Amino acid sequence: MEQSLTGLGNLIYEQITNHEFPWIHMQSRSTDNIMYDPEERQYVLGPRMIRRHSRNIRHIRPFTQLVWTAWFAKELVMHRKTSTLREVYYSARGHRDIEYNNQQESDNIITDMEVALNRAREDFHIFPEERSAIFGDLTIEYTVPGYEGRRTNLTDHPDGVMIGPAVTSSEFVETSADKVLVVEKGAMFTRLVEERAHDKFNAILIHTAGQSPRATRGIINRLNQDYDLPVYIFTDGDPWGIHIAMVIISGSANAAHLRGLTTPDAEWIGVWGTDIIDYKLPTEPLTEFDHKRLRELKNDPRYTGDIWQRELDVFLKLEQKAELEAFSRYGLTYIVDEYLPAKLGS
Amino acid sequence: MEQSLTGLGNLIYEQITNHEFPWIHMQSRSTDNIMYDPEERQYVLGPRMIRRHSRNIRHIRPFTQLVWTAWFAKELVMHRKTSTLREVYYSARGHRDIEYNNQQESDNIITDMEVALNRAREDFHIFPEERSAIFGDLTIEYTVPGYEGRRTNLTDHPDGVMIGPAVTSSEFVETSADKVLVVEKGAMFTRLVEERAHDKFNAILIHTAGQSPRATRGIINRLNQDYDLPVYIFTDGDPWGIHIAMVIISGSANAAHLRGLTTPDAEWIGVWGTDIIDYKLPTEPLTEFDHKRLRELKNDPRYTGDIWQRELDVFLKLEQKAELEAFSRYGLTYIVDEYLPAKLGS
Repeated sequence: MEQSLTGLGNLIYEQITNHEFPWIHMQSRSTDNIMYDPEERQYVLGPRMIRRHSRNIRHIRPFTQLVWTAWFAKELVMHRKTSTLREVYYSARGHRDIEYNNQQESDNIITDMEVALNRAREDFHIFPEERSAIFGDLTIEYTVPGYEGRRTNLTDHPDGVMIGPAVTSSEFVETSADKVLVVEKGAMFTRLVEERAHDKFNAILIHTAGQSPRATRGIINRLNQDYDLPVYIFTDGDPWGIHIAMVIISGSANAAHLRGLTTPDAEWIGVWGTDIIDYKLPTEPLTEFDHKRLRELKNDPRYTGDIWQRELDVFLKLEQKAELEAFSRYGLTYIVDEYLPAKLGS
Repeated sequence: MEQSLTGLGNLIYEQITNHEFPWIHMQSRSTDNIMYDPEERQYVLGPRMIRRHSRNIRHIRPFTQLVWTAWFAKELVMHRKTSTLREVYYSARGHRDIEYNNQQESDNIITDMEVALNRAREDFHIFPEERSAIFGDLTIEYTVPGYEGRRTNLTDHPDGVMIGPAVTSSEFVETSADKVLVVEKGAMFTRLVEERAHDKFNAILIHTAGQSPRATRGIINRLNQDYDLPVYIFTDGDPWGIHIAMVIISGSANAAHLRGLTTPDAEWIGVWGTDIIDYKLPTEPLTEFDHKRLRELKNDPRYTGDIWQRELDVFLKLEQKAELEAFSRYGLTYIVDEYLPAKLGS
């Protein structure tokens, strides 16, 4: 991390000592350069490059901001500190010529830095606000200052441990689990812990709290890659839940420049449209907004697989959606006693 | 808990065996019966009682729903299970004459049950979705099934532990902390952990994730009462942040029937309007909505204290607001090195 930042600094320094206007080369992130790669099974950036050049008057400000952001990231890495995206934005306040107009602009420059250096912002210790949680038999070893070498098992706290900078940067030491079960809601996470789903299904439980933060997607990827654990994703049966699963599986266009965040072999196990029929689940009617979103997903290149097209069609035909909690109709333990065993084939 | 539920069941059973239409007596929760009690320093219910009577055709449905909800709560307590509000709503689906039209209706009946039995829903194992977190030198002993008697120290995980049913129902065993520091945002929580604020200020750190869930308010109350720890609340400098602090201090009208959730001696330490001036913080202009809310707070009986009126006036006069992260302008550690010591007088 520090090397790539130092490399960027040296490059600019050399350009200046050579009496050049400094510039940076990076892949274009414009929509026409983002494409779905069926081989990588995720969005990737195409070959088009752009040059951000300080000779160009329109480029001077974002160029300077990028250099400042890289300096800020270097400070973070050097001092072993982390920062949220919002703190980066505020840290630039009051610095003339760098100050961002809004956080969107700041986030955007951070993404530029990711592309230019080919590393995720988390590698530079920049995180979004934490909100996901993890629970299950996984022993980790912390690497954050003050906790180096300290090991802990993630079954210690039955309410779950937050996934923040410390868990994200930890080493995975040992697990007896043979799968990962990802849910999108805290309520279902609590339910699964309470029903001892981690024991029954021998699983590590992860709660994404809506769209999965990148750090959490990275952890899912590591569990899948390092321990060869199959990953099962369990979401609301509506276009938003489906897409939470898809982003874990295939990533997003916004992160087309990054690798190691997707888990292409992860499986979305429900709530399916066909589950609504098979399990006679309580439903809500689709809103117009849901409808529009389902149609968008149908045309999204990530949704070409059979299951996806079939289930999207079922939702559209039923004109209904169902939440994870809908299974409570059959009692609170039904989901663990009946539904998940059927879905996990156990 | 179980006794009060059994008591309710027995009462209704007796009424029926006496050939009466069963009914329940409870305090009225209508606005004109909710008043601010300056002695208790929180909202309380007035003396007006209502009777929910199954002889009254308009009452039959909510009466039946209340009895069903009490039965459901009894099941939870008996089987040592917890449920979210949403699961309660779904559990009633498919039961004719009980099924709720929406979750609002179900939540409302749960509140009726709280009033009728004079106990918080958490006592009946009904929780909202968890999202707050805690960190610091507090040893707790779990009481949830499978974890009985297991002790853990809340500095184990530097990303923090979620406050769910297990932490909420735990016994507090021991702490070396001499204060509680409550923040409304995960980002600031992570910052405080990273800067070792728990060591520097000898504090237990709590992150409410916006408006503090009741269980979290209960924990703050217990730390204040059981260990005599002063509580300091640190929020965004805007009407929404101010009100997060106020609800921890004085409670909400919705919970006027409950005790043990407020911490009247807790102090809101910032971000004040005067901090914006004193620390030259980066700000955003107030929106019309902020403005309206500030005026409402000025007339709210909980806001009679001098500091509150002064600070509300400053915000209105400045026409500006500031976030917790605004201090990053002076470097990421400024908040822990300068601001908090000044505010905590340490």
